[in-house]
Amino acid sequence: MSADKSAPAKLKARQPRGFVDRGPADVAATERMLAVIRESFAVYGFDPVETPFVEYTDALGKFLPDQDRPNEGVFSFQDDDEQWLSLRYDLTAPLARYVAENFDALPKPYRSYRVGYVFRNEKPGPGRFRQFMQFDADIVGSGSVAGDAEICMLAADTMEKLGIKRGDYVVKVNNRKVLDGVMDAAGIDPAARLTVLRAIDKADKFPLEEVRKLLGDGRKDESGDFTKGAGLSDAQSDRILRYLELGQTLAELGKTNAQDSEGSARLSASALADLRGLVEGAENGQAGIAELEQIRELITAAGYLGRIIIDPSVVRGLEYYTGPVYEVELTFPVTNEDGQVVRFGSVAGGGRYDGLVGRFRPEPVPATGFSIGVSRLYSALKAVKSPIVDSRNELPLVVVTAMDNKSPEFMPGYQAMVSALRQAKDADGRPLLRADLYLGASGFNAQMKYADRRGAVCAVIQGSSEREAGTVVIKDLVLGAELAAAGRDVKDSAEHKAKQAQAQFAVPVAELVAGVKQVLARHE
Amino acid sequence: MSADKSAPAKLKARQPRGFVDRGPADVAATERMLAVIRESFAVYGFDPVETPFVEYTDALGKFLPDQDRPNEGVFSFQDDDEQWLSLRYDLTAPLARYVAENFDALPKPYRSYRVGYVFRNEKPGPGRFRQFMQFDADIVGSGSVAGDAEICMLAADTMEKLGIKRGDYVVKVNNRKVLDGVMDAAGIDPAARLTVLRAIDKADKFPLEEVRKLLGDGRKDESGDFTKGAGLSDAQSDRILRYLELGQTLAELGKTNAQDSEGSARLSASALADLRGLVEGAENGQAGIAELEQIRELITAAGYLGRIIIDPSVVRGLEYYTGPVYEVELTFPVTNEDGQVVRFGSVAGGGRYDGLVGRFRPEPVPATGFSIGVSRLYSALKAVKSPIVDSRNELPLVVVTAMDNKSPEFMPGYQAMVSALRQAKDADGRPLLRADLYLGASGFNAQMKYADRRGAVCAVIQGSSEREAGTVVIKDLVLGAELAAAGRDVKDSAEHKAKQAQAQFAVPVAELVAGVKQVLARHE
Repeated sequence: MSADKSAPAKLKARQPRGFVDRGPADVAATERMLAVIRESFAVYGFDPVETPFVEYTDALGKFLPDQDRPNEGVFSFQDDDEQWLSLRYDLTAPLARYVAENFDALPKPYRSYRVGYVFRNEKPGPGRFRQFMQFDADIVGSGSVAGDAEICMLAADTMEKLGIKRGDYVVKVNNRKVLDGVMDAAGIDPAARLTVLRAIDKADKFPLEEVRKLLGDGRKDESGDFTKGAGLSDAQSDRILRYLELGQTLAELGKTNAQDSEGSARLSASALADLRGLVEGAENGQAGIAELEQIRELITAAGYLGRIIIDPSVVRGLEYYTGPVYEVELTFPVTNEDGQVVRFGSVAGGGRYDGLVGRFRPEPVPATGFSIGVSRLYSALKAVKSPIVDSRNELPLVVVTAMDNKSPEFMPGYQAMVSALRQAKDADGRPLLRADLYLGASGFNAQMKYADRRGAVCAVIQGSSEREAGTVVIKDLVLGAELAAAGRDVKDSAEHKAKQAQAQFAVPVAELVAGVKQVLARHE
Repeated sequence: MSADKSAPAKLKARQPRGFVDRGPADVAATERMLAVIRESFAVYGFDPVETPFVEYTDALGKFLPDQDRPNEGVFSFQDDDEQWLSLRYDLTAPLARYVAENFDALPKPYRSYRVGYVFRNEKPGPGRFRQFMQFDADIVGSGSVAGDAEICMLAADTMEKLGIKRGDYVVKVNNRKVLDGVMDAAGIDPAARLTVLRAIDKADKFPLEEVRKLLGDGRKDESGDFTKGAGLSDAQSDRILRYLELGQTLAELGKTNAQDSEGSARLSASALADLRGLVEGAENGQAGIAELEQIRELITAAGYLGRIIIDPSVVRGLEYYTGPVYEVELTFPVTNEDGQVVRFGSVAGGGRYDGLVGRFRPEPVPATGFSIGVSRLYSALKAVKSPIVDSRNELPLVVVTAMDNKSPEFMPGYQAMVSALRQAKDADGRPLLRADLYLGASGFNAQMKYADRRGAVCAVIQGSSEREAGTVVIKDLVLGAELAAAGRDVKDSAEHKAKQAQAQFAVPVAELVAGVKQVLARHE
């Protein structure tokens, strides 16, 4: 009889595409990062709120047009009463549902923050996941642009608290009404506007001459495919392109001058003057510029000008936003996957969305807010070596080895040692270290490898001779590694030999904690 | 034309059954609680790991028997390649998948902890949700009962760090092998064992005489329905019932003596002696008792006996566990929904599950671990008034009112005030307060109500006369509420009038932060 034949086939351990595990360094560092963001948002008077991962699909606005089936971009399933449920797609739609449901009980304006994973049923790719974390802050129930200004200042403060230096980030503000005003002033037909917006959205990918083709008759790409244009007149296209040029110039100037507040103030003023010309006669455009001016005054009064700049190049999606839009861009260089040096780019963004809560409520409910892409920001903090994501912030680890682990009667002795270490406290009563007892069945060499692999600062060892003497050996693994790496000539020196005595020494069992403290103090 | 007719019907804002929102106090307190648990687990050498919310259904072991459809107890949906995905049901099955997939890269034994929401597609009820949070710790790759002992000690330490006093909790340990051994010693036919286990599982609901019927011929309930019994002989039933009686007696004794270590030690010893009689001749039962004895020695050496007790009444589910099982019970009284005073009960539990990782791997991979029910534990901390869930741990809130909010030109002045407050730090450079700027359109009275509703300690006020004088008024809302509640006779006193002067006073704008600090210091 063959054991292989009768054994059932083993399952393959694997993950669905676009979902990832995260190891100890990432989890701990992200946790510290989230704690900083939480505190930063709390200082601005935002309260935490948490909504569940599952919502009715209609509450998320995620049904396919004219069909009773959910959009394929969301993960959906039917409840036992046949109603469609979906995993949340972002943190904004659930907030709108929450505010509408608890409208009378909430203080208004309602400032809240939320953090958590969201899900997209989309094709995953490099850096594109089907589960990712967002951290949002929103002000619901205030139509004042002072709310938009508050969010921009919150974003700036949060970047600095996370260890991103002033000048390494910029918060860029625009207003969707200005873009609408430019189209109004150009007399662009409503039917053509979606095509115009799509062309504008290409301005960060194509040269402006290519965008001009998309605004006019159309554009043939390298493969010969033809994209029909918006059919604008030359004068209309000129106005849109002047707007885009203004945006690109100001964005570049804004980036290089982000550290120079006075320069930025001049830039912002000149941008507003130029914009005023482009929206002449368009009421909403004028209103949008007036709002940008108010924002500039607010951030100037609070001392944020330069860190926050007016930048007409910010578009941020084609629907959804109804007023100011803003984006947090990191301006320091990084090397991308192709080896090119590029600016780090956007890590957060948002804007005013006055229509979203109104889906559920009879009264209009204005709102503004922004969302941080947590894993992208985490990569940024690692790129600038922020102390917040430094793994040396963890408590040092001590491994108690179990040299005689074949004999269960010696385990209680090892257990008592590891328990004593876990009680060790610093002067403030905080834990001083992490302590691990080796619980495997392997021999001593494998145990020392285990201690190394776990990054232990020291190992605690007791064999039979130590047990008889009532002592325990403490091995300083950091110093030990340094000594092992030293050259032969150094190894013969008296200093080296003195250090060897420090790297491994015996103490009475009762002095174990004191001995370990001594080793930890060396490597603080 | 009627506006009502043309307006689209508004969506109703509602949540799917069994899913709940959590407000600011709950979110903040839970976050503090999780931070304490994280640190407690880290001190024991456990590393964090995070797996995604979505797994292949087969990796979770959640297909219906002999069918290609997922079990209805899990939320499932098909990927675009037709493979079934499910929301995780617990944190153990994903851990098994993770360890199997990263087996060679992980240090072994592998100690890890995980926290997060899990999902059950079950009928919700009072206190039963379809999304709830678990906090797990597991040791994978060690077959040593020293691992089980470590988990029990970790559980005990964590309860105390969370503010649950010694004597208000007990960690109860049993071993599934002992139960198997009792059935072996009784010579119970394998075919009858599932029915026997089901009857045993009823022992905490029914009197033992009713359990005896289920072990024998069967039992008729009050409605007249008949449940067929396991068909044991009287001698077999006697042995099972002696086991259950022993369990119940010891559990009661263990609970009342949890604060008395010596008493508990005697109890544990006597329980082990009695158990030995019940499993005479059954090899696995003997092995189980030997393991319990080892656990008792380990916890005695480390000083945990009494907090951790041997308790044969712990069964914990009928499948899945292969050795020691343990449960954390809170022993203090609470009043339940029916007004009865009951013991708080179980908040965490676990055991050894040597088969789970082996579903994916050719080699056996022993494992043990436990899971904390986070919301249940949170309720417990509120019941014992643990400082960890006390909302006074939040930073105090200051609301800057905007008396002249109809005139946008005054907003920059208010903005500068709130920004200055947000920069206020304590001696250690930590933020001193939370500061909110009122952004609504309502008048002054509504703004003061807003400050009250948000629980602000003080409000900052500047009208036109203050603006002209270059001052700002600070209103102590806590003291103000005390004074307002005072009786008429008190209100005429000189002391009351002096306090009124403290409760509302003007300072130059430049001294706003100093004035607010003065008010906060009164209420620390």
